Amino acid sequence: MLLHIQFSPEPIPAALPALSLGSETGAFVEFRGFVRGEEGDHTIGGLVYETYQPMAEREITRIAEALVVDHPVQAVRILHRLGPVPVGEAAICLGVAARHRAEAFAFLASFMDRLKKDVPIWKTDTLPAA
Amino acid sequence: MLLHIQFSPEPIPAALPALSLGSETGAFVEFRGFVRGEEGDHTIGGLVYETYQPMAEREITRIAEALVVDHPVQAVRILHRLGPVPVGEAAICLGVAARHRAEAFAFLASFMDRLKKDVPIWKTDTLPAA
Repeated sequence: MLLHIQFSPEPIPAALPALSLGSETGAFVEFRGFVRGEEGDHTIGGLVYETYQPMAEREITRIAEALVVDHPVQAVRILHRLGPVPVGEAAICLGVAARHRAEAFAFLASFMDRLKKDVPIWKTDTLPAA
Repeated sequence: MLLHIQFSPEPIPAALPALSLGSETGAFVEFRGFVRGEEGDHTIGGLVYETYQPMAEREITRIAEALVVDHPVQAVRILHRLGPVPVGEAAICLGVAARHRAEAFAFLASFMDRLKKDVPIWKTDTLPAA
């Protein structure tokens, strides 16, 4: 499994080329998580993300290596934005390539659940609504 | 639910902007299905897709309207290529925008299962391996 991890304060590109390993790749799935205009019952202008990057990368790698045993995907790309992220923009983009779509879907859904639970990425603040 | 359906003999663009309805959209998921280099136990160079478009569009609309009841997504975009599709290129691209990722994942997985089963899109031929 190829694994690419990137944290950046820069906006995640609006469109990224699909991951593919060539003639053996039958499925690519991408998830983007956008900041919504409410947090709890507050209207917000954005969220601020922080991480402890060495630990976050280790945890992401650990989760991916555990999940690939049951869901044999070929390549995983995870981009996470740090710092202020305005409403409507993506905080995360996760792409998965696999032979068949069932593996890709299962990996993606499980990965996102584990990421939220186990990886030290925090929403440390909100930006005021415009 | 916004629903966009497009059949075309042209290649599906390598990267498409995410669907979003603005501050209410928290999740976007895209699936791409690529033609793989084997069909059964044959090595192939591609597949040829045909459809009866009026019926395919009706069925896709029917499936989407049924699924949105349980999985309240906001927008769905489906592009399907027709005619010859070489190995490594996408035959289908399905994008789903929703408030939360769980709805988007569930809609996407169910939609693909139903599409394969109920929509008159056929693989009518194979292209010889290079």
